[in-house]
Amino acid sequence: MMLKRVAVVGLGLMGGSLALALRPSIDHLTAVDTNPETRARARQVGLADDITGHLAQGIAGADLVILATPVRTILHLLRQLPVLRPDGCLVMDLGSTKEAIGRGLDELPASFQAIGGHPLCGRETAGLAHATAVLYQGQTFVLCRSSRTTPVVEAVARQIIEWIGARPLFLTAGQHDELLALTSHLPYLVAAVLMGTVAAAGQADAWQVTASGFRDTSRLAGSDPAMMLDILLTNRPAILKALAHYQAELTAVTHLLQTAGAEELATWLRERQAERRGYEGRGRGGEGERGRGGGGKRGSEE
Amino acid sequence: MMLKRVAVVGLGLMGGSLALALRPSIDHLTAVDTNPETRARARQVGLADDITGHLAQGIAGADLVILATPVRTILHLLRQLPVLRPDGCLVMDLGSTKEAIGRGLDELPASFQAIGGHPLCGRETAGLAHATAVLYQGQTFVLCRSSRTTPVVEAVARQIIEWIGARPLFLTAGQHDELLALTSHLPYLVAAVLMGTVAAAGQADAWQVTASGFRDTSRLAGSDPAMMLDILLTNRPAILKALAHYQAELTAVTHLLQTAGAEELATWLRERQAERRGYEGRGRGGEGERGRGGGGKRGSEE
Repeated sequence: MMLKRVAVVGLGLMGGSLALALRPSIDHLTAVDTNPETRARARQVGLADDITGHLAQGIAGADLVILATPVRTILHLLRQLPVLRPDGCLVMDLGSTKEAIGRGLDELPASFQAIGGHPLCGRETAGLAHATAVLYQGQTFVLCRSSRTTPVVEAVARQIIEWIGARPLFLTAGQHDELLALTSHLPYLVAAVLMGTVAAAGQADAWQVTASGFRDTSRLAGSDPAMMLDILLTNRPAILKALAHYQAELTAVTHLLQTAGAEELATWLRERQAERRGYEGRGRGGEGERGRGGGGKRGSEE
Repeated sequence: MMLKRVAVVGLGLMGGSLALALRPSIDHLTAVDTNPETRARARQVGLADDITGHLAQGIAGADLVILATPVRTILHLLRQLPVLRPDGCLVMDLGSTKEAIGRGLDELPASFQAIGGHPLCGRETAGLAHATAVLYQGQTFVLCRSSRTTPVVEAVARQIIEWIGARPLFLTAGQHDELLALTSHLPYLVAAVLMGTVAAAGQADAWQVTASGFRDTSRLAGSDPAMMLDILLTNRPAILKALAHYQAELTAVTHLLQTAGAEELATWLRERQAERRGYEGRGRGGEGERGRGGGGKRGSEE
């Protein structure tokens, strides 16, 4: 399959970075965004061959359309695609949750070939202003097959991932959403609740006595609300399950702190440290090791 | 007051870094640690003029004794001081909680002049191996007066803080412990519970799909259990209060996620982001901004 024309829809951190990373490998790149300021910035940096706010025009003639908006906008775009492209095309998305999008891909007409994607390199700084061609370098890029996935679109997705320097990891949409509820959506809520708790305490002096611990633990509270809202709304059951487990663990340590002796509490602390060290030992916990990964690969990396 | 001889007791990250940072400014530095391996390492790096495992010998003749062990060991050392130094001396500590230590300082005989200290630059990597002379550069160093605090020991503490490049912040021990429960002890528990929740889920693939978000939010789970145990045991009421507020906030967002519409949930997300941005705006949230602080100082920085 010749991949001559690619359209990226949504020029936030992910879409913008993808455009920057793909530009050298693509004959003709079109970038679509509804925000005029974002388009102006995209023109300034020469992000693509064509930059437009008009979806139909932007995706006309594209061999591959990459949807890089928040999840619920992706769902909306998928419903528009059959009308805008009755001839069909290849479709890939970068949505943060995959089950709802998987159902959307399944419902595309047979003229479409589609695969779900989720590159694991979010930052809490959203927007094209933070986009960088190296965002995906060395990062894990989850791919989720749907009933519209063909060998052709899968090969194209692998090619895209290779061009941007990421590495593919195949999961089912259900696996993806359950795992990310634990490793991404729960951490966001944990951080946001921490931020809310300290802010609500109304202790002006508290900010004076924060150090790197509070800074890192609360970092995700700064995540883009539009992106997070769509994640929460499209992965509610898995997130509520993760929250219930977190609540139970929090209640248990509160009880330990109220009633337990030093030795029992020390055991709990040592277990958590051992788990964190085990995680670091998998090559994922070190500073500056952002997703470089390494040992202990156990997923269905293909 | 001439400060000729200083003894640092406890050569972990904090004590070891303090020794390294003070060495150029002190005539004679003695380092005390009960662990033979730590002492061997201290000798390798030429940490002090004398390095000993014998407390009485180490603090004999010191003008200033700096206690840099976990909190409960500091409390134990304070009870030994009157016997080991019947002539009295200046005393300062680096303990992570300050109320219990404040009471210990109050109980020292009148021949002692003492002040509580807590430099806010912990890391989750403990031990002399990670010590560095620049650890305190630009960091906030909390000082807490006790009934044994005199202008002399306060001036000495300020001198020490100046030598190591930190900046003093005076708080009462009660203020310190209540604020740190929110900004340090609660974040530790939040991170440790997150680590425990993900580990307990038993999803081997989960580690494959972690990125910087999980890494940062769980970082504090790696904190030294001995240090954390003493913090938890000596600041229980304030930590339980912070935990109760966190639990309430977590229950509220869980309820929102179960029942609320998109707009209500979006408002919650935007509020947390605004709080986090406000925190960053105080110069404390940026990457690489580890405690450099800056605008918006509102504490009793003197």
